[in-house]
Amino acid sequence: MKATIDGRECEIRAVWFEDGRVRMIDQRQLPARIVIVDFDDHLDIAEAIRNMTTRGAPSIGATAAYGMCMAALNGCDLERAASDLKAARPTANDLFYAVDHMVEALGDGADPVEAADGYAQMMVDKCTMIGEYGAELISDGMRIMTHCNAGALATVDVGTALAPMRRAWAQGKRFFVYASETRPRLQGMQLTAWELNQEGIDHAIIPDGASAYYMSQGVDMIITGADRIAENGDFANKIGTFDKAIVAKHLGIPFYVAAPVSTFDFDTGTGEDIVIEQRSEEEVTMVGDTRIAPVGSKALNPAFDVTPAELVTAFITEMGILRPDEIHRVRQ
Amino acid sequence: MKATIDGRECEIRAVWFEDGRVRMIDQRQLPARIVIVDFDDHLDIAEAIRNMTTRGAPSIGATAAYGMCMAALNGCDLERAASDLKAARPTANDLFYAVDHMVEALGDGADPVEAADGYAQMMVDKCTMIGEYGAELISDGMRIMTHCNAGALATVDVGTALAPMRRAWAQGKRFFVYASETRPRLQGMQLTAWELNQEGIDHAIIPDGASAYYMSQGVDMIITGADRIAENGDFANKIGTFDKAIVAKHLGIPFYVAAPVSTFDFDTGTGEDIVIEQRSEEEVTMVGDTRIAPVGSKALNPAFDVTPAELVTAFITEMGILRPDEIHRVRQ
Repeated sequence: MKATIDGRECEIRAVWFEDGRVRMIDQRQLPARIVIVDFDDHLDIAEAIRNMTTRGAPSIGATAAYGMCMAALNGCDLERAASDLKAARPTANDLFYAVDHMVEALGDGADPVEAADGYAQMMVDKCTMIGEYGAELISDGMRIMTHCNAGALATVDVGTALAPMRRAWAQGKRFFVYASETRPRLQGMQLTAWELNQEGIDHAIIPDGASAYYMSQGVDMIITGADRIAENGDFANKIGTFDKAIVAKHLGIPFYVAAPVSTFDFDTGTGEDIVIEQRSEEEVTMVGDTRIAPVGSKALNPAFDVTPAELVTAFITEMGILRPDEIHRVRQ
Repeated sequence: MKATIDGRECEIRAVWFEDGRVRMIDQRQLPARIVIVDFDDHLDIAEAIRNMTTRGAPSIGATAAYGMCMAALNGCDLERAASDLKAARPTANDLFYAVDHMVEALGDGADPVEAADGYAQMMVDKCTMIGEYGAELISDGMRIMTHCNAGALATVDVGTALAPMRRAWAQGKRFFVYASETRPRLQGMQLTAWELNQEGIDHAIIPDGASAYYMSQGVDMIITGADRIAENGDFANKIGTFDKAIVAKHLGIPFYVAAPVSTFDFDTGTGEDIVIEQRSEEEVTMVGDTRIAPVGSKALNPAFDVTPAELVTAFITEMGILRPDEIHRVRQ
């Protein structure tokens, strides 16, 4: 992805391996500043996933792969490292997928760095294909809405939901993106708008509650990412996705989910089987060190919701564009 | 409404006349502190409406009535004062209704203070009736969702959407309220939760995007206020109301709108005729003096949206509970 660091435009990834360490963008500090943090211990990497230094299902997967890489380089117990990393967050399937992938590769004697780099590159290649397929859905003059950040920051590079927009813009198509701010952590405002800005893609930030207002005025498509997709096509994604999918259905607007095949979890039958992470109420009630809610009022903070397959127009994957009833092709 | 000031529990209104001045709670400072501000010039009162020192359609109406009262006491041109006050905000019908009411009363030779106090008391009496009728809809164990603040702060006292909850709680019914935080200005978190807390009513703050998540887990009813209701039952209310109404319809949850008859505007045929105020993008992109959005990204900030009548189960008014097809009874 493009990033302007010290006034210079660079190409950077969300997470990578360099000089014996795992390096990543501290996404909690965007958009105010671009801070790169280094790790050489897999437990610190698990904590960086937990505290959302890095976030987004595919980036979490790649970070966990690099965590397994560090554990192997440091001669740690790999079974234990795998379980430490898997415990960092409960919802994203990529985390489990990536750790299992590394356990298998390391078990087969693969070089730890090559295996983790390969995993990260595979994710970027998949996102590039998602961009190719998804860009075909976008035409000049469209208005597109997205939620949270399913961009390059969330996927090592390129993005899932943002991949079609990046590719279509590079093809010369001109369109407008509504980035829903995504309370409480504001990934839409602080990460998606930052990426769109870096790429020069026309956009505006909207409050989450302005979705129906803008959709009723004419949005041509919604594209979001996914953290886990169940066998029947129900999918978990950032809280607020379910609301948008219902509104889109009611107003007749196509709703697309962009995700690599690693997000499909065929061990999860339906959305009801997906564990929803409940995060701390301070993410809602505090801004920095300042409490903004009344003393005595509690807040609830589910990190994800589950959208039923019936509200999804299609999934944009590296294997092509699949309707919910075509998911079984992914399995084969 | 109950308010704890300097450790003492008091009864207080959102706006009132005392010692030759108009006094009001500065709602921008809640919940951190209760600050009472005084005005003796109707232009300053118009500014207090514009900058949301006071807000909520019926409180705006009463504040404008007190503004006309001050203009009369100060010997100002009443036609000009009326137009200054009406220009403060564009969407709430109560503002125009209250100013016209005062112009007529003052034209008939009414005492300015008695006329404005009478208007404010009339609003409180209406809210009390809304509470009586609405409380009949609430039973033990219910889970109720509301949005923004349609409480005592918004209506001089008692509230519209919160009136049935206040009354039902006083009747000994026990239920749980989800207060949607209501970005960008957080009136749900900072005003509704504050009022519920003062009254001792069980509640939790949720991000706006968590509405579908909680509704799908079992919410028994939604109650919101309204800023203007058109002849056909379409209504304007705080941005995010339309999203919730669509989600409620999709999930089969009753959606009630609590509002005094002064909110019905029979000069407005449908929701399409309602002017939606667009507020500054800084309400979205700034927290205090700190910019939280990327430099270069703009934000959109519509203050209201319009919900079509077909999504409304019923209107809770001081005249009783009316289905959208029964609104004509209000006119008669």
